[in-house]
Amino acid sequence: MKAVVYRGARHLGIEDREPEPPGRGQVRIAVAYTGICGTDLHIYHGDMDARVGASAIIGHEMSGRIAAVGDDTTGWSVGQAVTVMPTRSCGQCAACRHGNSHICHAMNFLGIDSPGAMQSFWNAPAELVLPLPEELPLDHAALVEPVAVAVHDVRRGNVTADDQVVVVGGGPVGVLIAAVAQGRGARVLLVEPDPFRRVVAQEIGLEVIDPGTTDVVALVNDRTDGAGADIAFEVSGSAAGVATAVDVLTTRGRLVMVAIHPQPREVNLHRFFWRELELLGARLYQRDDMVEAIRLVASGAIPARQLISRVEPVEAATAAFTALEGGGVMKVLLDMREGNR
Amino acid sequence: MKAVVYRGARHLGIEDREPEPPGRGQVRIAVAYTGICGTDLHIYHGDMDARVGASAIIGHEMSGRIAAVGDDTTGWSVGQAVTVMPTRSCGQCAACRHGNSHICHAMNFLGIDSPGAMQSFWNAPAELVLPLPEELPLDHAALVEPVAVAVHDVRRGNVTADDQVVVVGGGPVGVLIAAVAQGRGARVLLVEPDPFRRVVAQEIGLEVIDPGTTDVVALVNDRTDGAGADIAFEVSGSAAGVATAVDVLTTRGRLVMVAIHPQPREVNLHRFFWRELELLGARLYQRDDMVEAIRLVASGAIPARQLISRVEPVEAATAAFTALEGGGVMKVLLDMREGNR
Ligand SMILES: [Zn+2]
Ligand SMILES: [Zn+2]
Ligand SMILES: [Zn+2]
Ligand SMILES: [Zn+2]
Repeated sequence: MKAVVYRGARHLGIEDREPEPPGRGQVRIAVAYTGICGTDLHIYHGDMDARVGASAIIGHEMSGRIAAVGDDTTGWSVGQAVTVMPTRSCGQCAACRHGNSHICHAMNFLGIDSPGAMQSFWNAPAELVLPLPEELPLDHAALVEPVAVAVHDVRRGNVTADDQVVVVGGGPVGVLIAAVAQGRGARVLLVEPDPFRRVVAQEIGLEVIDPGTTDVVALVNDRTDGAGADIAFEVSGSAAGVATAVDVLTTRGRLVMVAIHPQPREVNLHRFFWRELELLGARLYQRDDMVEAIRLVASGAIPARQLISRVEPVEAATAAFTALEGGGVMKVLLDMREGNR
Repeated sequence: MKAVVYRGARHLGIEDREPEPPGRGQVRIAVAYTGICGTDLHIYHGDMDARVGASAIIGHEMSGRIAAVGDDTTGWSVGQAVTVMPTRSCGQCAACRHGNSHICHAMNFLGIDSPGAMQSFWNAPAELVLPLPEELPLDHAALVEPVAVAVHDVRRGNVTADDQVVVVGGGPVGVLIAAVAQGRGARVLLVEPDPFRRVVAQEIGLEVIDPGTTDVVALVNDRTDGAGADIAFEVSGSAAGVATAVDVLTTRGRLVMVAIHPQPREVNLHRFFWRELELLGARLYQRDDMVEAIRLVASGAIPARQLISRVEPVEAATAAFTALEGGGVMKVLLDMREGNR
C-alpha cells in the first residue's frame, strides 16, 4: 500500500508499506480520499515537530470503505462507506471529567498524535468510525470533518433563523461556517480580502464583501436598523478581524472565536461590558456535530463539489501541499484509491 | 430642603432649596440615606461633565419613605419605605427593541442624566419605585442598588452551588459579588491587593488572598484537582486582573466582565479558543435583580452593617467624597433625614 510519511519540514515520503492487520476494537479502512487542511500544512512546514515526531503518517479528513474488521469489533461490514472522527479523548483529564471530552487536555488526534489517513489502508478505532449514506460520493465525504467544525461553531453561536451573522475570514472554515449558518436561515455576510476566495464564496451563493473597500460595521448597522449583528465568527486570525467582529455586534451579541491567535490581542473590553457582549471559544466538534455534518454534505446543503478545488493522486502529495501554500485553492484532496484497489 | 449640587470638578454645593410638588406619575420621596459610589466619585472628579452638566443633583443609591403621591399615580401610600431603580430606558433604541432595555443605548440614569437622590425630597417616576419591607433598616436599604449590580453579575455568570468562583478585585462591587455568589453555595475566593479591603472582606466571612504573595492560578488549580475555576469575575479594572481571570478558568469556564476598562486590553484569545472559554459583559441590572437585592439585604445575607464604613450628615458631603478617595472605607452614606424632618 501507499503512505504519505512526514519526514521533517517540507519533506514528504511516498512510501510502499505492508498493511498491518486491524487490532482489537479496530476496523481497517480502505481510504478513498484524504483532505489536506491548515493543520496538515502546519505540520508540513515543520511547526509541529515536537508533537508529530520525526516520521509520521498524517491526515485526518477522510472517507473510505471498511476493508476488514478486528477482533471484538461488531456492527461493521466490509465494503461499508465510512468516515472517522479523528479525536480520541483520554477520559481522565479535567475536561473529560467535566463533560468536555471533545476538547480533552490529553487528546490523541489521529493524523497528528498517532498514524493518520494518508495511507491506503488505515486501522482506526471502531468507536470513532461513522457510517456514511451510500448515495454520498466519497470525495464529498472527505469534507465531513471540516464541516463538523463549522457545525460545532454555529451551534456554539446558537445561530437561528433570521439572525444577522457576520463571518470574518473566508478560507475553508469561514466559508463552511457561512454556509452552515445560511442553511439555518440566518442572513450571512462573509468578510474576506482575498479576491479568489470571494469568487468561490459567491459561486456557492454567499454574500461576501471586501473589507478593504466596504465599511463592514456601517453596512451591518445599515441593514439592521442600527442594531448590529447578532453573531460574529472570527475566522481570520488577524488583529483587524478581531476588531471588526467586536465592533459589528449588537447588544448581547455573540462573538465565536474560531481562529487561532498565537499572540494576545487587544480587545475592546469596554464594549463587552457596555453592550453585555459574549465571547465564546469554539474548537473541534462532538460526535453529534459529525453526524449533522454527514447529513449536510449528503443533502447537498454544503456545496462540496464547488469547494473541492483539486483532487491529486497520492504520488502528487507534495504538489498538493504546495498548491495550498500558493492560495487560489479552497479544499485539496488526495485520491488514495490507487493503493487499495 | 437640602440638596447636594455638583458644580464642577471637586465642587459640591450644599444648598437650601424649595421642594417641588411631584409631577404626574411621580412620587415624592423623603430621602433617608444616599450612598456614594464610584460613578459619583467620577462625577465629582469632573470626568463626566459632558453628561452631567454644570449644575446637577447627583446620587442614585438610596432609601426613603413616600412623602407625597402625584396625579395618576396609584399603589403608593405616604410613609411607605421605598427604594428606586435609577435607570429609565427609552423604549425605542435597538437594545430596548430587542429585550435589553436594562442597558438601553439612550438610558436616562437618575442622578447622572437627571436629578438624583442627594436631596431631602426627590420626585421619582413611580414605575421605578420598589417597596421595602418595614423591618429593613433604611441605612442598609441604601445598599440595594449596588447589591442589584452584584445579583445581576452573578446571574450573568450562572453561578450555582459548589461552583469554584474567583472574584478579582475586592472593592464594594467585588465584595458584594463574592457575598452573593457565596450565598448561592459557591466556593468563593476573592483576590485583592489592598490590606484594608482584605480585612473588611475577611470580617464578612469571605476568603480573600493577596495576589502579591499568593499564586492565584496555582492555588485554584490545587483546590480543583487541576481543573480551574468555573466562573471568574473581573472587577479590578486592571490588565493584571484580566490576565488572572482568564488564566484561572477551567475548560468552558466563564469570565464575567464587570469592571470598566477604558483602554483595550491584551487578551489571551488562544486560551478562549483552546478551552472554549466564555467572556460575558455584565452591566447594571433588571427589575428582578433589584427585587432579589432587597430580599438579600433584608434577610441579612448581605452583611450591610459591616459594609457601611461611614454615615455622614448631608453638610459633610465633601468630606464623605474625599474619604472615598483616600481608601480605607468600603461604602459611605449620606444621612439625608435632617432636611426632611
Ligand atoms: Zn483539519
Ligand atoms: Zn481528557
Ligand atoms: Zn452606583
Ligand atoms: Zn432604549
